[in-house]
Amino acid sequence: MADKVTIVAHSGDMDKLYSALIIANGALSMGAEASICGTFGGLERLKKGGLEKGPLSKMHMLGLGKWMIRRRMRKQNVASLERMIQDFKELGGKILACDMTMDIMGISAEDLRQDLIEEYCSVGTYWMEARGSGVTLFI
Amino acid sequence: MADKVTIVAHSGDMDKLYSALIIANGALSMGAEASICGTFGGLERLKKGGLEKGPLSKMHMLGLGKWMIRRRMRKQNVASLERMIQDFKELGGKILACDMTMDIMGISAEDLRQDLIEEYCSVGTYWMEARGSGVTLFI
Amino acid sequence: MADKVTIVAHSGDMDKLYSALIIANGALSMGAEASICGTFGGLERLKKGGLEKGPLSKMHMLGLGKWMIRRRMRKQNVASLERMIQDFKELGGKILACDMTMDIMGISAEDLRQDLIEEYCSVGTYWMEARGSGVTLFI
Repeated sequence: MADKVTIVAHSGDMDKLYSALIIANGALSMGAEASICGTFGGLERLKKGGLEKGPLSKMHMLGLGKWMIRRRMRKQNVASLERMIQDFKELGGKILACDMTMDIMGISAEDLRQDLIEEYCSVGTYWMEARGSGVTLFI
Repeated sequence: MADKVTIVAHSGDMDKLYSALIIANGALSMGAEASICGTFGGLERLKKGGLEKGPLSKMHMLGLGKWMIRRRMRKQNVASLERMIQDFKELGGKILACDMTMDIMGISAEDLRQDLIEEYCSVGTYWMEARGSGVTLFI
Repeated sequence: MADKVTIVAHSGDMDKLYSALIIANGALSMGAEASICGTFGGLERLKKGGLEKGPLSKMHMLGLGKWMIRRRMRKQNVASLERMIQDFKELGGKILACDMTMDIMGISAEDLRQDLIEEYCSVGTYWMEARGSGVTLFI
């Protein structure tokens, strides 16, 4: 089993996207491979402008407002999602966009951040990535 | 590690059930094995009539109403959950119902779609499925 | 691939924590290893007093109130989260607290149940656990 992580990024929640990118970038930094497959809420975030606005995070349900979270992140030097996804790409990570979800949600390739996406793929492509990965997550 | 996916279907959200079935059916189509373990919200959906009504999807949080999603799916020839779960069974997929969740939620075997369920199982059965699977997901 | 499960406990929802602990304790009982990495909502639950109060469960969205769930659990002799996490520790399970999340959420080690936590860790530690595990889940 290859030293690789394949993540389905299904949720658009800010805390979950952070978790996906922290894990993927951590794996890449330690010499593993990483693929992220955007679908539903995760795919929404790959739309132009989607990383910064996006759907409401659930983090405020933990009693912290979004504003508070952003302030704490700045103070702790936590990178923005944009910065983290750029790091992901530079470290060799692969972003796939699920084409079936694009159809269901009426999203065209032009709506998406084509600078980030490596491939518009079907479940077959996902399966080939996942079956060769030691670590698989649905986030 | 066998070419197999074992999925815990914990959520009853329509978009997550679709993801579970798309991945599982994709794996089966490519010659792998697939098991889905229904628990909590996923188990609710295995009740008689549960696939079509079920708990509110979170898809409308992405700005799309359920009605709109259904119209888009029809237009794109996306199969219904019922059709996808029938395909899953025909392709050799295995559906397990978590018996501990049945107790907690007061669900009896008669409440469930017995035509779909292969086994009423404990966590031990799940573990034997999962430990022999190359891909494991909690959805 | 070692007979081991590594779980990211990202959600603080009662039903998801139950699922994480049921799976982990099941694996431990069958002779496997198990690690749980607490982050975001899962980390909130590791605060002093967090296991019993914690964020609102989503279980009531299934039409069951929390009170009803608790009554059913008592009747079915389902253990409390506290009991299950004690079993997890006694069976040799390892609990890790994500230090980056601690920074973001302003949680210090003193706020946390230090009797439960084995290590305050970075994503590198998580990755070493996960890459050596046959089963990996994000819950």
